Amino acid sequence: MTASPLPHLVVIGGGFAGLWATRALAGSPVRITLVDRCNHHLFQPLLYQVATAGLSSPDIAAPLRHILRKQRNVEVRLAEVREISAADKRVALDDGSRLDFDYLLLASGATHAYFGHDEWARHAPGLKTLDDALQLRRHLLLAFERAEAEPDPAKRAAWLNFAIVGGGPTGVELAGTLAEIARHTLTNEFRNINPSDARVRLIEAGQRVLSSFPEDLSEKARKQLQKLGVEVSTGTPVTEINESGYRLGEEFIAARTVVWAAGVAASPLARSLGAPLDRAGRVQVRADLSVPEYPDIFVAGDLASVQQDGKPVPGVAPAAKQMGRHVARAIRARMDSNPAPAFRYKDYGNLATIGRMAAIVHFGKLKLSGLLAWWFWLAAHVFFLIGFRNRLVVLLNWAWAYWSYQRGARIILGRDEEDQARSTRQA
Amino acid sequence: MTASPLPHLVVIGGGFAGLWATRALAGSPVRITLVDRCNHHLFQPLLYQVATAGLSSPDIAAPLRHILRKQRNVEVRLAEVREISAADKRVALDDGSRLDFDYLLLASGATHAYFGHDEWARHAPGLKTLDDALQLRRHLLLAFERAEAEPDPAKRAAWLNFAIVGGGPTGVELAGTLAEIARHTLTNEFRNINPSDARVRLIEAGQRVLSSFPEDLSEKARKQLQKLGVEVSTGTPVTEINESGYRLGEEFIAARTVVWAAGVAASPLARSLGAPLDRAGRVQVRADLSVPEYPDIFVAGDLASVQQDGKPVPGVAPAAKQMGRHVARAIRARMDSNPAPAFRYKDYGNLATIGRMAAIVHFGKLKLSGLLAWWFWLAAHVFFLIGFRNRLVVLLNWAWAYWSYQRGARIILGRDEEDQARSTRQA
Repeated sequence: MTASPLPHLVVIGGGFAGLWATRALAGSPVRITLVDRCNHHLFQPLLYQVATAGLSSPDIAAPLRHILRKQRNVEVRLAEVREISAADKRVALDDGSRLDFDYLLLASGATHAYFGHDEWARHAPGLKTLDDALQLRRHLLLAFERAEAEPDPAKRAAWLNFAIVGGGPTGVELAGTLAEIARHTLTNEFRNINPSDARVRLIEAGQRVLSSFPEDLSEKARKQLQKLGVEVSTGTPVTEINESGYRLGEEFIAARTVVWAAGVAASPLARSLGAPLDRAGRVQVRADLSVPEYPDIFVAGDLASVQQDGKPVPGVAPAAKQMGRHVARAIRARMDSNPAPAFRYKDYGNLATIGRMAAIVHFGKLKLSGLLAWWFWLAAHVFFLIGFRNRLVVLLNWAWAYWSYQRGARIILGRDEEDQARSTRQA
Repeated sequence: MTASPLPHLVVIGGGFAGLWATRALAGSPVRITLVDRCNHHLFQPLLYQVATAGLSSPDIAAPLRHILRKQRNVEVRLAEVREISAADKRVALDDGSRLDFDYLLLASGATHAYFGHDEWARHAPGLKTLDDALQLRRHLLLAFERAEAEPDPAKRAAWLNFAIVGGGPTGVELAGTLAEIARHTLTNEFRNINPSDARVRLIEAGQRVLSSFPEDLSEKARKQLQKLGVEVSTGTPVTEINESGYRLGEEFIAARTVVWAAGVAASPLARSLGAPLDRAGRVQVRADLSVPEYPDIFVAGDLASVQQDGKPVPGVAPAAKQMGRHVARAIRARMDSNPAPAFRYKDYGNLATIGRMAAIVHFGKLKLSGLLAWWFWLAAHVFFLIGFRNRLVVLLNWAWAYWSYQRGARIILGRDEEDQARSTRQA
């Protein structure tokens, strides 16, 4: 490494916050190293489409190196961060190397939280990465295969029982799409089961689904879900999850598929900053998004706990992008020895899709639901996908799925533990 | 299972032979169970495109259930066959169940053979399934990442040394595409390495590449490969492969990537038929493709050893489809107590792609090479892809790749053993 007169910024995480900060510093006199354990930026809002076989992984992901190839002040490192030494201004990577920094942006995002029940993780996987999505796709498709091959009616019913825990956007999207697959996509394909016998249940411990929306839109979402064939359960938490099913209140329901879309916890790296954390483990940053003790260390995206007008800034893509851009501004100000401005989240609105032709939209005074909201959602998501090719392929896949009820990515890959067991049983 | 008056045909394998036989029996008075360990039919001729990040898995695969959903005399079973009892007319599956058959078609295809060096398999993976392709894609993309992060020049060079063993169609396609990736796709994306420093070597132990073509076309293929930047080595076999490289003649070359595209061996199921096998383990069938001792058991596709006019029928997709259709005819004849006709392979021609705008074509007296042959190859392959959607998406991906030199599926997924080691080293 040759010595460089430019200050060195290390960005941890190539998600919306990290990538937008990096791009906003394109012309600035700073040397940037972007570290991510994946080689790609992921368009997380469509991850549920990969899990439900509507899209392929490459449709919603683009290599970070490729996105940043023309920005010559950036070096991309495929590695995992092991440790942050805030006082020494140094980051340790899993390949044994170390990076000294002048400025640091920690934007490594959130992971699943099981509210103290880590043993549930095995039986109720979550959805944060492409690997999670492919694992879930595999499980969902195999559930119908296992049901088809199962002669015992009770066991068969357990394979056709799907539960999704958590009534936020991801849970709602998964439940709606899964109901569509069971009722429409798989029609005629099985000989021993009727896929539309599948039960899809969405479980929200709170009083309503999509609680970040106004009450009337939540209610519309519930009705649209029910119309798609989803059983919606609110007000009762899941109290047990194991390999044969889950307990809801007093009742134990036999189910081979439970998906976790409920808790979100900050990445463990947050702790190493020594800054105060909120209940979910997010870093309580200052007004300019820097860390109280270390003004040259910033936190942005899902990992940052920011209050505005008495409400938390939500963990959504637009907020992460805005934070990323703000950190770029703050670093530029600091390099010029100017005070950094305070971050202010601009809420452009909130939208959630529910399933085929069903969504809700809340933009200021505008409230939409149903088909119109769905078109709105579709346009917004295709527009925001990075890269021309992705947009076109995604649109094509959707047009195809819309007219045919088919899903292009219904391919089961890999082997799971159960397969391994089957292979060795009679080998 | 209710008793059925119709005879029961079990088809093992949903590749070209098995699927074409099944579809050819659509209107016939026979009950068919198609068993495959994958849920999809795979368009194998384009598998190398998935391995080299040009296409996504779902682009070249379609769920067997979906293809056959309207053919009511077929039941698809996702399972692996453990054993065939030819005398008892019974097949045992890995889920513990058994299938009694009146007729059997064994079309489970071929796998890699390492010529008695099974220990090479770990260091030189082959390419037969989608899982193989994704594993290989991961390895190829990671090799450039590891080189970028490696400060030692010798170790870095080993990461940029790629060897492909076997000069048949798959080896040629892989070598040509890999050279294109190194020279064009990754331009500008790395800061510490120049991807076009990568060495791509194609190793054929015989005297020429693509030896199923006439000599002049082989020679043209070699020239086109060299123009694309591939080093072509012929006449010297690889005598050792380990984790640090390979030995070619006397020389040991440090290389972290060796791909196996050389040997092909029949599936171990062939042995259980008790029929004579050829050197590669394929079943030597009778003229009607049935097995000598068991006239109701047929073998088709890569697993069948068929001689015609003193030459073996090649292990290519058109031959497998023709054999599949022939078995359907033979079973219909047998059900009508007529003698089954002899199988006759009709060779429509031979074509192989080499890389961007480079291919060779041999149709009777017609010999083409270069750009024209490439267009011919492209049209043929897109046309034969199953399913309208796939064709369109593949075409779109190719058009995009052609104009931009970009590859849409450059997404690294999953974790390999080395990652696991890195994670635990400092945990």
